[in-house]
This record gives sequence, structure tokens and C-alpha cells, in this order.
Amino acid sequence: MVIILKQSASEARIRDLIQWIESQNLRTHISSGDYATIIGIIGDTSRLDEELLSSLDIVDGVKRVSEPYKSSNRKFHPMDSIIEVGEEKIGGGHFAMIAGPCSVESREQIITVAKSVKAAGATMLRGGAFKPRTSPYDFQGLKADGIDLLLEAKRETGLPIVTEIMNANHLPLFEDVDVIQVGARNMQNFELLKELGKTQKPILIKRGLANTIKELLMSAEYVMAGGNSNVILCERGIRTFETATRNTLDLSAVTVLHELTHLPVVVDPSHATGVARYVKPMALAAAACGADGLIIEVHNDPARALCDGPQSLRPEQFEDVAEAVRQIRTIVCPQQ
Amino acid sequence: MVIILKQSASEARIRDLIQWIESQNLRTHISSGDYATIIGIIGDTSRLDEELLSSLDIVDGVKRVSEPYKSSNRKFHPMDSIIEVGEEKIGGGHFAMIAGPCSVESREQIITVAKSVKAAGATMLRGGAFKPRTSPYDFQGLKADGIDLLLEAKRETGLPIVTEIMNANHLPLFEDVDVIQVGARNMQNFELLKELGKTQKPILIKRGLANTIKELLMSAEYVMAGGNSNVILCERGIRTFETATRNTLDLSAVTVLHELTHLPVVVDPSHATGVARYVKPMALAAAACGADGLIIEVHNDPARALCDGPQSLRPEQFEDVAEAVRQIRTIVCPQQ
Amino acid sequence: MVIILKQSASEARIRDLIQWIESQNLRTHISSGDYATIIGIIGDTSRLDEELLSSLDIVDGVKRVSEPYKSSNRKFHPMDSIIEVGEEKIGGGHFAMIAGPCSVESREQIITVAKSVKAAGATMLRGGAFKPRTSPYDFQGLKADGIDLLLEAKRETGLPIVTEIMNANHLPLFEDVDVIQVGARNMQNFELLKELGKTQKPILIKRGLANTIKELLMSAEYVMAGGNSNVILCERGIRTFETATRNTLDLSAVTVLHELTHLPVVVDPSHATGVARYVKPMALAAAACGADGLIIEVHNDPARALCDGPQSLRPEQFEDVAEAVRQIRTIVCPQQ
Amino acid sequence: MVIILKQSASEARIRDLIQWIESQNLRTHISSGDYATIIGIIGDTSRLDEELLSSLDIVDGVKRVSEPYKSSNRKFHPMDSIIEVGEEKIGGGHFAMIAGPCSVESREQIITVAKSVKAAGATMLRGGAFKPRTSPYDFQGLKADGIDLLLEAKRETGLPIVTEIMNANHLPLFEDVDVIQVGARNMQNFELLKELGKTQKPILIKRGLANTIKELLMSAEYVMAGGNSNVILCERGIRTFETATRNTLDLSAVTVLHELTHLPVVVDPSHATGVARYVKPMALAAAACGADGLIIEVHNDPARALCDGPQSLRPEQFEDVAEAVRQIRTIVCPQQ
Repeated sequence: MVIILKQSASEARIRDLIQWIESQNLRTHISSGDYATIIGIIGDTSRLDEELLSSLDIVDGVKRVSEPYKSSNRKFHPMDSIIEVGEEKIGGGHFAMIAGPCSVESREQIITVAKSVKAAGATMLRGGAFKPRTSPYDFQGLKADGIDLLLEAKRETGLPIVTEIMNANHLPLFEDVDVIQVGARNMQNFELLKELGKTQKPILIKRGLANTIKELLMSAEYVMAGGNSNVILCERGIRTFETATRNTLDLSAVTVLHELTHLPVVVDPSHATGVARYVKPMALAAAACGADGLIIEVHNDPARALCDGPQSLRPEQFEDVAEAVRQIRTIVCPQQ
Repeated sequence: MVIILKQSASEARIRDLIQWIESQNLRTHISSGDYATIIGIIGDTSRLDEELLSSLDIVDGVKRVSEPYKSSNRKFHPMDSIIEVGEEKIGGGHFAMIAGPCSVESREQIITVAKSVKAAGATMLRGGAFKPRTSPYDFQGLKADGIDLLLEAKRETGLPIVTEIMNANHLPLFEDVDVIQVGARNMQNFELLKELGKTQKPILIKRGLANTIKELLMSAEYVMAGGNSNVILCERGIRTFETATRNTLDLSAVTVLHELTHLPVVVDPSHATGVARYVKPMALAAAACGADGLIIEVHNDPARALCDGPQSLRPEQFEDVAEAVRQIRTIVCPQQ
Repeated sequence: MVIILKQSASEARIRDLIQWIESQNLRTHISSGDYATIIGIIGDTSRLDEELLSSLDIVDGVKRVSEPYKSSNRKFHPMDSIIEVGEEKIGGGHFAMIAGPCSVESREQIITVAKSVKAAGATMLRGGAFKPRTSPYDFQGLKADGIDLLLEAKRETGLPIVTEIMNANHLPLFEDVDVIQVGARNMQNFELLKELGKTQKPILIKRGLANTIKELLMSAEYVMAGGNSNVILCERGIRTFETATRNTLDLSAVTVLHELTHLPVVVDPSHATGVARYVKPMALAAAACGADGLIIEVHNDPARALCDGPQSLRPEQFEDVAEAVRQIRTIVCPQQ
Repeated sequence: MVIILKQSASEARIRDLIQWIESQNLRTHISSGDYATIIGIIGDTSRLDEELLSSLDIVDGVKRVSEPYKSSNRKFHPMDSIIEVGEEKIGGGHFAMIAGPCSVESREQIITVAKSVKAAGATMLRGGAFKPRTSPYDFQGLKADGIDLLLEAKRETGLPIVTEIMNANHLPLFEDVDVIQVGARNMQNFELLKELGKTQKPILIKRGLANTIKELLMSAEYVMAGGNSNVILCERGIRTFETATRNTLDLSAVTVLHELTHLPVVVDPSHATGVARYVKPMALAAAACGADGLIIEVHNDPARALCDGPQSLRPEQFEDVAEAVRQIRTIVCPQQ
């Protein structure tokens, strides 16, 4: 880390600052020039608060030479991480096609959808059992029963299952779940992330609506710092002024993340756009820019389409998307 | 709720929709004109998902005639709520001046700050014991010990205490805390909100960085639906493209909230701006537009200023702010 | 347009409103129900100010049944528009590959780049002669000389040229320019748009940093209302809180625009990301979601790379992108 | 300016960079340490493009020690600028109360409003003659006739007039206008700003919807670099995800601007909120945080209220706001 001091900074204040830095078990290296005085800091600066230092009145600016994320940093782990999910893999050229309904609603529904998405090319089954809803008066999911039904669908189809957790106290229910999802609203629920770091389950972390790419990495870091390196990141749209889509899908995040981290990155075009007819073009775009997987909502019963999300595809639409994605991938990753 | 149908909507699809609505225990009223067909829905529509209905391909638009928030809605409770906190009150003309350090660091620190903010006019003491930090490597607070020290400061000064909870499992530690704060990152941690709804403690909910005013009300609704009507709302800045301040303080939210809800609204200018010298003007502006209180960070030990947040005031600065706020309030609320 | 009135609206106020609407040469149709009174408005409501009506205290909400954009609306022109640019075409399956340097700097530079991008597959040459710069102290372009040099490059290579206008008074200089670009900062410079509407030149309008998709269409409408239907739209990133890329490329805008309008939509991944190594993945993603063209910055002289934008590709990199884009297009538009 | 190089930067690349910097008439000062190599740049670095340098692959970061705005910078002009407008002043303790209708509609309208706002305490009259409208089909103002009517109102009341320019070609019409307004959409219409820099008229520049505080200062710089130092800045809300108000009024911008520049800063609560009943609280908040003036929309004819903006106050409401603002100012600026 490098601190650039203001020209007006007094000797005494500079001395205080250096003393404080060194009290944090760091070494300093001072360089004075005509233009500015600079303090270089040597050691593990990940615990130093950049914002705090920037705001000191004698400081003109602060630049990190090293990033505050360690375990997820590609610098220290240049090869792509490959996360194993049952017999499936994700990352390092392995593409995950995760599909299923927004919410688990009944035994028949989840098993029918599971079979049809499997036939259409899905490699994992998603489905919400615990549902975070803006309103306390909205349907909150089938909860434990929803997980039981997902597990039944897994036994029937062999598809690994992905489902969201909202409360660390529910962890015992997730024992046979293959991938535990942390929703966008809980991306900075650090207490939950810490508990998930104590497991060895693959954890899929969705980017929060107003969270930067670096904050997403810091949330991954919470899980990894606990000893669980099985983290999958998910871009699902950020909140902007545009209202034509539910959120604004930030596909450049896929590219930026691939540069900064070795973790796999999947994209959720269903929640990002909120509109079924935009899912296919955004799924193809995600595949074209190198995403390691997709999460797509699929419903099965046209008569009940009303209750499924407006962003859900029918199985035959999903099959069409899956086929086009496969073709895009032959161009983007020809060797795989 | 009113649904405006597209001119192209077929009779059969319209019939399906009406049938589904009526299956939700709601009555409908159809009105067909040259311009459009409209379905009026009568009954408790708070459970209907507006976004879902909007996205149906036969629907041109949906308008709620009633808001989805009930308990917090001023329509059903025209008088300002007054929340009692120990012997202090907030709302309905009662102004809360909440001050204290970012984090509780030591017995000496919290008691010294508590005494000095009390002398300067604070009516409650704030201080972080559990600290949500973006990085797992940053200081996470003194936790249970921090709460003990806050309670000691309360005994010494008589000031009620306000401190943040991050995990419902910690609730037993908050038994003697006067106001439990839900941080911006947990504003949509619905599991936590539900647990707080089972208590009778005043709950101060901070607006999330990317959350709308209506979503803040829906989070209040989670607490109130559980039976706890002691909710205080807090505007603390939203995330925008502007980087000159840490966040963008949205003071019009104070005015909008006063129109929509009877709950008191406080403003946190310290976290919103992130810069100590912007705290006074923003505190005065908040008082001028009718806020029911302020939360201001104050540190005490100039020699340790480095470790306090760059947004913290010294006690004498806080005293100056408190005095100016009192004067502003004589103009804005002359009768109180 | 449909106006939903509040239940509290008095007869007299409703009568006033109806009278006023009818004074605007529109007919009304009233429908009163238990739930709400609704005014349907028949006639050309594009001149009615939706925001104004929404804010009347007797109005609960307003819904447009028809969009305020007419000439650009796909409803009235279902087939894709194909814009002719010299012998090239764009839209309706014709893909434009526009490449060139950020600024025209010298005769040698622009001719060398023109030749190399042509060889690499470009169908048009871009280059800035008039440069909008945030700072008055920055290089503002070669201006008229820059346009002369672009025309020379056009004569040498046959490539049609695309360059930005900042002032309608400069129009005479653009007589031989093939496509006139309106930059993001001038998207709502309505005086400029009106003047461009009087020409028959293809006009490429870049989306403003904080402008919605609908506002972009309204700006196209300014040109088209003047009689010039040769409009090309360009997505180039919007301003959000994320700072990892210069702007956030909103690729869903391509899909939304294709639904709302018949005009061609191109994407500028160079300005959107601001980073050369992100250009290829974003170009492929744009092609995969159906964009009608790309605008890519290419510089030629490695020794002078410093002065070119950090987002510029070298010719051989551009060639690689162009080839991959062609392959993606064989999947997305197999028939072309 | 200070450039921090990556540890991996080769000698040769560093030498190239230094050579290029020195070719720009700047001197360099190199400092190599264990941690990083730093290049300090001495001379007028306002012409160096920070973004370009940041993106070089050998550069880890760039920090400006001096700001790119010069004429507007408080560092070089510590005293507040006081702009004279007829016999009125603004800045340095002089407060401007600017009021009037959204658009000039008729002789009677503008003269009646002018008289009533003058009686209520306005010090200047605003009114739109040239109206920037998102839709080409909306009313675009009375144009030259509107300016004539404003001048007539000025003769009748003595109030200086403030009105918007959209095209530098219209400047001759503005000869007797007292303050020329540049609207938010034209904040970065650099061609217009340059022409205004050639006059000596006070120029009121509104902040663009998606423009940072620093960009607003750079736009002021365009006018000032031309020789016109009579610039007034205006905060009028920025575009965010929140839709409860038309824009989000960023009052901290007032405070930040007062720190960075000596120019006066006014606030427009009418356009920022878009709702008449939010104007008073936001006006008081603006006064409380030190704004140098307010621009408030006032209409006069209740029967025609429909056609005035929903954000307009009636004269008696404006009088109430003006009186409360005066009281707030006695607290904030007791000596004036």
C-alpha cells in the first residue's frame, strides 16, 4: 500500500501516522520528493482500512498495490478453480446448465420439471424452498418440505440440486443439498457467510443489487477464510435507473471476475431481466463472454403459468436455449 | 388493484386470468371500453404480486389503488407514532439526538464518550459491538463484551443505548439494549426481521444502499407483522455514481416517508457522507426538512483519532451541531 | 391513455379534468366502479404529459396504452429498417463492423489504420475529428482538418466514414461524411437533433450515460419527426455505481430495443468498458444477443500506443475479434 | 501527479513512459523502493489524461496531487465569488430567491406571476422561453416571444430575469437577459459553453442528471476558460434507482462544492422532487446546509393549475417558503 501525503502535512503529523502504521506490525518506507512525500507500507496490509487512511487530513491519496481479497485472488492461484458438484463439474471449461422452477410447489411439479429440464440438457436442478420476499404477506416457500421434494426429484433424475438458504440455523436441512445458494439480499449477511465457510458444500453467491464486483469477492472471501474454497459466483443484474428490465445485467462483470479470481462465474438471465423473452439473448451473450454456467427458470404447466414467474421459460424454450448455448460454446471454447 | 388489459387479449385468456384472481379469494369487476378492458380487483390485494401480473402478455399495466404496506401506512394511522425508549421519546415532535463512537473499543473510551455526548446534548448513546465489515480480515467488534461496556456506560450516564444486531441467535445478549439497530446490509435479511418482530424492543432499521423507500417500508412491515410496532426508520445514504461522498444522502426520503408512514424517521449524516466536515451541514439540513432525529458518530480521544472513523466528530464539534440543530428546530417545529 | 382516479376525487374536480382533456382535442370515456373511477382517453395522446397527469392530487395513476414514440415504433413498422451507408447496409440481418482510432491525429495515422481495419474485416471507418472532452484543457480534435483526413482515408480504402458532430453550425463540413454520430453527451441536445432531422444522412445516436431506453427512442424521434428516418441507435454503457469498468454495458438494451423499434442497434464495447482486454468478450456477447453492428477502437502504431485510448485494440487483435464475431453470427443468424 | 508502477514493469517500458511524459513539457522525479516505483510529475498536469495513464498495463495507479479545474478552484481563490445580477448579488452571504413559472405562456401570466413572487420576496424572476422537452411532440416554449414577455415583466417589476438557452445561435435574443441558464441536458454541450464563455453574462449551469460534482466544475471551467468568471452552479437532483421523487436531490453536493470552489451554488427543489408538497422541506434543507440561493417554480392561476407543472407552488405557498428560508438563514448565517 502506498500513501501519498499532502504537501502541507507537518513533520509531527507524518511521524504520528508512521508510528501508528508500524504499531500494526507493518514496515514503512518513506520517499520525499519535490512533489509529494510518499509512505510505502510493507507487510500484510489487507487489514488496513483504505477509506480511513484516505480521509486523514494529511493524506492526499492511498493506493493499494495488493488487493484485499486473498483466497479468491487469481494472482495467488492462476489456474481456474473447478468445483465438483456430485458428478458434475463447474469452472475450468466445465459449463453448468442449472434449471428449474422459481419455487418448489408440489411433488408433481418439481419432478415433472426436473425430468423435462434434464431431457433438455440441464446438468443441475434449481428450485426455491425458502423464498426471500419483499413483503411479509407473500408466499415464503414450502421450506423444509420444499427441500424434501427437491431431494426426491434428485433421486428420480440424478440431477444435483441447488437451493437457497436464508438462515444458518436451517443448515441441518441442507445436508443432502448439493449447492447452497446465498441470495442477492444476503450477499453481505456476514454471519451467514461465516457459517457456510465452516462447511465443505459448494456455495453459490449471488451478487447483491448494489454491490460492486470487489464486494462480491470479499463475500466469497468470508466463506473461503473459513476453510471452504468451493465458491461459485453469480451475476444476476444490478440496480440502475433503467426500468425496461427488472435489473441491469452486467455481463462485463463476468470478464472482470475472470481476470480477478479463479472462481467460476455463472449468470442468471431470468432474474436479471425479469422477462421470459429476454432470457435467450442474454443467455447466449453470457455464454459468448465466457460465463461458466447459467441459471435459468423453467416452469412446466402452461395452465399454471400465471403462478410461475413471468421470467420463466417453458421446457421446450429452455431446450432451444440450451442447444444454442452449446453451439456458442463450441466457438468460444473450441477445445472443450 | 386495477389491471389494464391489452386490446389484443383474447376472451379465453381474460377468462383464465379472472378465474385465477377469484381463486385467490378476491372479487373482480370488469369494465370494457373502446380503449381498453379493465379488471378492478376488490379485497385484500396485498398478497398479489404486482410484478407478476404486469408481465403477463395480455396485461398492459397494473396499478395498485392501495399500498402493499399496511401496519406502517399513515392512511390507517394518521397520527405520528411516538416510540418510547426508556424515558426518551421519538416521533410526533420528539427529537432524538443519538451519538457515540463507531465501535466500542474499551471501557474507558465508551464511558468517556458517553459522558461527553450527554453533556453536549445527546439523548441516546450509540456504539457498535457487532460490526458488519466488508472484509473478513477487518476488526469485527468486541461483540458480547462490547454490549457489556455499553450497558456500563448506560448505568453511568442514564443514556439509553442503540446498537446493531447481525444474527437473531444473539438476541439474548440484547435483553437490556434499548434500541436494536438493523444495519443497511441486513435491511432485507427477512429471517432477522421476523425474529425482531417477536420482541417488543424499538427496532431502528437503516435503509439499504440500493433499496427504495417502499422496500424500507416493507422491511418495517416484516417487524410490525410479527406484532412489534416500535419501528424507527433511518435514512443513511444510497449508492449512486457520485463518489465525492461515500453515499448520496437522500433527504427527500425523510419527506416522502413522513407522507407515507406514521413511523419516526432519523438521519445518519456520518455514514452517508463519510466525511466529518460534511456532518454539520447535513445534520442541519435533516433537521430543517423535519427529521425526527439524528445519529452522529463522535470520538473522544484526539490521539487515537486515526482509528476512529474519518466521519467522526470530536465532542465539541458535536456540541456545536446539537446547538444549531436545536435552533433550526425552533423554526421548523415552533410549538415544541 | 387510462387515468385511474382516487376514490376521494370530487365530482367537480373530475369534471374539470375531463373538460381540460377534451379541450386538447381528445375524447374521454368514463367508467365508474366500486373500486375506482377510470377515464379512458381516445385520440393522439402523445402530446399529453404523463408525469403532469400522474401528479394531480385526484389521480391515482396513469397508464399509457400507446407509446409516445411513433416513427421509431415497431408496432407501426414491423419489419427491421435497413439503413444504407454508401454500398454498405445495416439492420435487417446486415451487420456493420465499424472500426478506427479514437481521434484522427495525422494523415499517416488514419490511412494506415483505415487500411489495416479494412483488411481485418471492417465495413466502415470511425475516427474523431471534433472531440467532446470533459476538460476545456484537453485536446479537442483536429476539427475540419480531421474530417478532410477521414475523407482522404475513405478515398484510399472505399470505407464509408462515421464521425461525431457537436454543433449544427458545422454541418457543411459533414457533407461527404457517410454517418454522422451524435455523442452520448449530446443525446438530448434537441436543437442539434432537429437540425440533423432536416438532412437525409444516416445518424448514429449514442445512448446518454443516464438515459433510459425510452429516452433514446424519443431522441431518435426528434430526428425522424424532421423527416430523416435513417437513424442507427448505439448502446455504449450507462453510468452506475460499479467502477471496475468505465461504464456498465447494458446488453439487455439491445434486446429491448429490438422489441420496441425497427431501427438497427449497434454496440460500442470500447467506450463502455474502457479496457482493451474486455473488448473481445463484450463484442462477442453483443453479437450473440443480436446487435446489428459493433463500433470498436483500433490504433495502429504500437510505439504511440500511449496516446491512443487504453481501450483501443491493435489491428491484429481487431482481426481476431472480427473473425470470432462472424462465427457467432453464423449461429445467431444462420440464414445470413 | 503521481504514477505508481507495477512491480512487474520492465525498465524499458518505464523509460518509454518517462520519455513520453517529458515530451509533454513536464518534468519527472523517480523514486524506487522495495514496494513500488513511483513517478512524480511536476508541471501543469491538467492536460494529462488520468484515465489513460491509469490503464497502461505497467501502471498500478495514478493520483492527482492537483485538481484539473483551475479557474473555479477555491485553492487559488479562497474568497467566495460574488456574482452581480443587475442590482442583486449572489454568493458570499448574498442569497438569491429565484421564482417564476415553468414556461412563459402569456403576457398576463408572466406579469401576474412576476408581481406576486416579487411581493412574496423573490429577488429574480425565472421562466422558460426555450423549453428542452424529451418528446419532439411536446410544447417547446414561446421562444423569442417568451423572452420579450420576460423582458416586459422585468420592466414592470424591476426583477432581473433568468432563462434557459439551448442554442448558441440564439445568443442575440439574450442580450437583455440577466442570467442565462444552461439546462441539465446541456451541461456537457461544450460548444454552447464555449460560446457563453465569450460573453460577460452570469451563467447558471445546472448539474446533469448523471454528472459528478467534478464534471460540473469542469463545465464551469469551459465558461471560465473563455474569460467569463460569472458562473453560478445549480444542484437539481441526480438520477438514481429511487422513483418516489423525480430525481434524488443531492444536498451534500452543496457542501462539497463550497469546499472545492468559490462559485455560488443554488438549489432547485422543484425540478429535483417534481412534487409541490416536497418543495418546502427541501428548500429549507438547502438553506440549512448553506446554499446561496433557490430556484422555485410558482404558478398563479389556480384554474389553470393543470397546465403548470405538478411541482409548482401557488404564490401564497411560495411566500410561506420564502419566510421560513429567511428564518433558517438567520441561524445559518447570523451575521448577514
